[in-house]
Amino acid sequence: MATIDKLFQPVQEKAEDTGSKVTVVGVGQVGMAAVFSLLTQGVTNNIALVDVMADKLKGEMMDLQHGSAFMRNARIQASTDYSISAGSKLCIVTAGVRQREGESRLDLVQRNTDILKHIIPPLVEYSPDAIFIIASNPVDILTYVTWKISGLPKHRVIGSGTNLDSARFRYLLSERLGIAPTSCHGYIIGEHGDSSVPVWSGVNIAGVRLSDLNPKIGSDEDPENWKETHAMVVTSAYEVIKLKGYTSWAIGLSLSQLARAILSNANSVHAVSTYLKGEHGIEDEVFLSLPCVLGSAGVSDVIRQPLTEAETAQLRKSAEIMAQVQAGIKF
Amino acid sequence: MATIDKLFQPVQEKAEDTGSKVTVVGVGQVGMAAVFSLLTQGVTNNIALVDVMADKLKGEMMDLQHGSAFMRNARIQASTDYSISAGSKLCIVTAGVRQREGESRLDLVQRNTDILKHIIPPLVEYSPDAIFIIASNPVDILTYVTWKISGLPKHRVIGSGTNLDSARFRYLLSERLGIAPTSCHGYIIGEHGDSSVPVWSGVNIAGVRLSDLNPKIGSDEDPENWKETHAMVVTSAYEVIKLKGYTSWAIGLSLSQLARAILSNANSVHAVSTYLKGEHGIEDEVFLSLPCVLGSAGVSDVIRQPLTEAETAQLRKSAEIMAQVQAGIKF
Amino acid sequence: MATIDKLFQPVQEKAEDTGSKVTVVGVGQVGMAAVFSLLTQGVTNNIALVDVMADKLKGEMMDLQHGSAFMRNARIQASTDYSISAGSKLCIVTAGVRQREGESRLDLVQRNTDILKHIIPPLVEYSPDAIFIIASNPVDILTYVTWKISGLPKHRVIGSGTNLDSARFRYLLSERLGIAPTSCHGYIIGEHGDSSVPVWSGVNIAGVRLSDLNPKIGSDEDPENWKETHAMVVTSAYEVIKLKGYTSWAIGLSLSQLARAILSNANSVHAVSTYLKGEHGIEDEVFLSLPCVLGSAGVSDVIRQPLTEAETAQLRKSAEIMAQVQAGIKF
Amino acid sequence: MATIDKLFQPVQEKAEDTGSKVTVVGVGQVGMAAVFSLLTQGVTNNIALVDVMADKLKGEMMDLQHGSAFMRNARIQASTDYSISAGSKLCIVTAGVRQREGESRLDLVQRNTDILKHIIPPLVEYSPDAIFIIASNPVDILTYVTWKISGLPKHRVIGSGTNLDSARFRYLLSERLGIAPTSCHGYIIGEHGDSSVPVWSGVNIAGVRLSDLNPKIGSDEDPENWKETHAMVVTSAYEVIKLKGYTSWAIGLSLSQLARAILSNANSVHAVSTYLKGEHGIEDEVFLSLPCVLGSAGVSDVIRQPLTEAETAQLRKSAEIMAQVQAGIKF
Repeated sequence: MATIDKLFQPVQEKAEDTGSKVTVVGVGQVGMAAVFSLLTQGVTNNIALVDVMADKLKGEMMDLQHGSAFMRNARIQASTDYSISAGSKLCIVTAGVRQREGESRLDLVQRNTDILKHIIPPLVEYSPDAIFIIASNPVDILTYVTWKISGLPKHRVIGSGTNLDSARFRYLLSERLGIAPTSCHGYIIGEHGDSSVPVWSGVNIAGVRLSDLNPKIGSDEDPENWKETHAMVVTSAYEVIKLKGYTSWAIGLSLSQLARAILSNANSVHAVSTYLKGEHGIEDEVFLSLPCVLGSAGVSDVIRQPLTEAETAQLRKSAEIMAQVQAGIKF
Repeated sequence: MATIDKLFQPVQEKAEDTGSKVTVVGVGQVGMAAVFSLLTQGVTNNIALVDVMADKLKGEMMDLQHGSAFMRNARIQASTDYSISAGSKLCIVTAGVRQREGESRLDLVQRNTDILKHIIPPLVEYSPDAIFIIASNPVDILTYVTWKISGLPKHRVIGSGTNLDSARFRYLLSERLGIAPTSCHGYIIGEHGDSSVPVWSGVNIAGVRLSDLNPKIGSDEDPENWKETHAMVVTSAYEVIKLKGYTSWAIGLSLSQLARAILSNANSVHAVSTYLKGEHGIEDEVFLSLPCVLGSAGVSDVIRQPLTEAETAQLRKSAEIMAQVQAGIKF
Repeated sequence: MATIDKLFQPVQEKAEDTGSKVTVVGVGQVGMAAVFSLLTQGVTNNIALVDVMADKLKGEMMDLQHGSAFMRNARIQASTDYSISAGSKLCIVTAGVRQREGESRLDLVQRNTDILKHIIPPLVEYSPDAIFIIASNPVDILTYVTWKISGLPKHRVIGSGTNLDSARFRYLLSERLGIAPTSCHGYIIGEHGDSSVPVWSGVNIAGVRLSDLNPKIGSDEDPENWKETHAMVVTSAYEVIKLKGYTSWAIGLSLSQLARAILSNANSVHAVSTYLKGEHGIEDEVFLSLPCVLGSAGVSDVIRQPLTEAETAQLRKSAEIMAQVQAGIKF
Repeated sequence: MATIDKLFQPVQEKAEDTGSKVTVVGVGQVGMAAVFSLLTQGVTNNIALVDVMADKLKGEMMDLQHGSAFMRNARIQASTDYSISAGSKLCIVTAGVRQREGESRLDLVQRNTDILKHIIPPLVEYSPDAIFIIASNPVDILTYVTWKISGLPKHRVIGSGTNLDSARFRYLLSERLGIAPTSCHGYIIGEHGDSSVPVWSGVNIAGVRLSDLNPKIGSDEDPENWKETHAMVVTSAYEVIKLKGYTSWAIGLSLSQLARAILSNANSVHAVSTYLKGEHGIEDEVFLSLPCVLGSAGVSDVIRQPLTEAETAQLRKSAEIMAQVQAGIKF
């Protein structure tokens, strides 16, 4: 009689899954930082990894599995075949190529669209009820692309958007004010990256608006130059890439926060890229970040922030540029 | 236009549930310690409470709700009506009456059986796929009673059993050895309470059996009197009750650990009360504690520990007494 | 050779303490809910309990110790002798008597002052560098009393104040708005309890002030009657006491949150009772709640909220009443 | 008046540190996985990073800082100057060079010794009371080297050793047995890597020794070939390196577990590299892994496992080889 038969009196077959399965597509720096955040922060203990690079994929899977005793017995699966993703509650897409030197934005978008055409349909097929989070860049357009390819209702396709920009903003505010980032409230909205919009009117500490203390805050006329704090948000992404070659930890943590809101049905508010036609006078079918209520159903509500004319103009400008790029995509 | 309509652009209805709903029946000291452990340890953020005492029930619900911002936006519901429990993954039953002075064990069991007849059927009706954990005393017999009343397969009805006795044992070992309780390995099996059986042959630190260092450990001939450590496990429950009136924190934490194993499909090993006919020569349909593998399906395997003759005899004796009591129950 | 000597090759004596020791005085419902929150939420694993009721104290200690394997090997000590508290980073005082029927407020304060005279000096003696949090009621006056008795600088004596009222307020806002409590921002300040002041001007979701959407919010003229939400904060404490006999979980969690801010040197913002002479025109040496920055040094800053005339008047009125009561205390 | 002066009423200077500061030297894959585990698992929120590569160092610091709002307001500092490490409770050294093709083991050790000569003295100078964990390879010899260079007592210099090998072993056992890794108990001791020794006599599930069920377990005569499970532990490290280029997550988590044991004064048992002269007949001053009790004082005890002759022989052989290599090091 085998050792295992001597040890166990079987009673009932084990369950396969746990109800909070998360698939992450792409095991690059962003994908792996997201997976490691999800596991170590206890957001899920059930991960499926998918990538086309079979070796790297297996290596990451094994490395995580070796640590499973340290992570509440996490279950880690990986395959180049999408069947491994079956039954996921949440799919996070981090795959994609980077901009080549001299490449136009449309060309980059087209190359990533062609990649998403191979990723999204099998994910939807194997997890027809999942929520989708897109982290690949340019994130706002690729969230639109995913929405188009997937055929899913708009509330179930979410771009990681400016949740990260907002976190950087809060960190920089916290450094300037000397208090905890979690006590610095402020949102960056619009397009992820260079054209993002800081909503200075809402920046507050304990409900005290900084713009009530300094009415010119964020403007060119501000003697204290708080505008610089937003400028640092934009440049700091480039700086990290220049210094270490990529960004990983902060975007991984940002994705983990969004995943927790969804999997725990928290109905908490986060700046994510969502379908915006009809908001703030936007007339195109584009995805940009606004504060949204996130739960198990995905985006249930968009928060209607009163914006200044300049803020609205910036949002609309981003929307127009994106609509133009989107018009050129071949699906 | 109402404030709420100005604030939100609705996109999609919110989801009701989160997939890890836990119902706790009974909001006495044990039930509430279990609920508070489940919430603060992040085992679930979705709790339904049921009790017949409507006032106490509402008070406990409100008190928890007031703290929900401190507990990952936990959702707390409560009702005297079992419909509130619908869709639970796990039902924990802590309700029941205590022994009256001079009351026979059978009389106590009958009174609690009559109570369980009102609790179990509606729970099964509203959550037909749930796992059941029974914590009411005498826990082994009441787990049997729940199994009979519920009509559920045996792997889905679990008694909290000697998981708590084992935790007390490890704590007392840790005090004597000067190392962490989590590094002191040992199981107490059999009947929860006075007749429980410490499996000295398995007690080990880092795989080093104490019985290899002290072959008489746990016996009457042991010059170091380790037997006393088990005696203290038995008496310490009484001592806590005498000192503070009841036990709550340790049993609450024990239930939270079992719940985590089940909800996270951990397949981890815990001493719980399970259907034992056929194990260790037991011929009756009784529930007693042995180390079991716990996951989303409930008990998947019972661990076959080699026991001494004395240990087996004690187990069988407990089984016989329980079978006799069980024979007298009117369902 | 004893088992223990066979098992261990000793290398070095173990350390006694861990650097984050917390003493809780009073093992009633509030004190124990605080302790259990601290342990299960991982705020500390090193607790000392002090109370005059030796039996209850020992029972609570044992019950927690039995669960230590479930709580990261927590170290729980208890004694009626204050030497057990030596070397604490934080002392939380929950001891005190309740108002007798017909008793004047001053008489109650005097009785609790007489109790604090026996508690505070030995705590200060054994932990001269600790931060003190007072949770006993009436909390604002007793925080003042503790400050006077202790001789400590004002930033090290903190009342739990309206951190709990604010949590209740956020929960009630979350119920009305359908979003997570942690995404509902708003502070209740001033005196803990009936005379507390909701700062409606700062209530916001994602930086959107509800008072910008509804300028009459919180006033008698508000057609949506949001004032009721604050009224419910005040009455809900009484309701919980009426329903279950006391409040415990929410105040325990509130204390755990404040403890985490202090022990982790978070510099996060919380509404706590602090020395207010000079703020908002207050001329007396009183403690009332305002949003404060909390870290290892205690209160480093008070947030200067712009208040309406009515809000300021209410604060000053509370201050005056408290100063009158304080003038009658015999130290 | 500046915004910040309008916002804050200063009361008291903030505290600099939190009491659980951890310095990590080396921001390569292992160092960063360790830091990220420490932060996301809540082991500390106070990290100092040191490396000679100023750019990479600053990039990693900024990336973590951007995520601080997601990690309990973690404090992240970094510098090429060791003064940043001042006041650490724990120093983790992950720096070092890898073996060049054709390089002898002694040459590698000498190169890493020369590096440690620049790292260890300033760490000791700035944190004279810290515990040291060495993760650089070959870890056992470099732990010895650190001990020699530092002049610290042996209980305060610890090698990460076979804690990782043991975790891999438990994961592979869990796969074979179908139960949670945390319920699979077994230790790999001796030299980290190829010559490590699995202590089959101690491998157990719920105290049931697999060697009692299968007396030939782990031997060449075992018909079930459990020996393969240890062989897979050895080869899996190489396989991960071949597949993804390095190992990171599992060693990072292993270091985080050891750090938690030390910082929380857990007195839990882990297989770490420790000074072994006098144990199991070892006559040289070498560091090899045995199960040790870890707390704030470092290693308080070594567990005396009864070993077979073959196991002891293997340990001694490793010790002799290491002593030979060590004899050739130029300090």
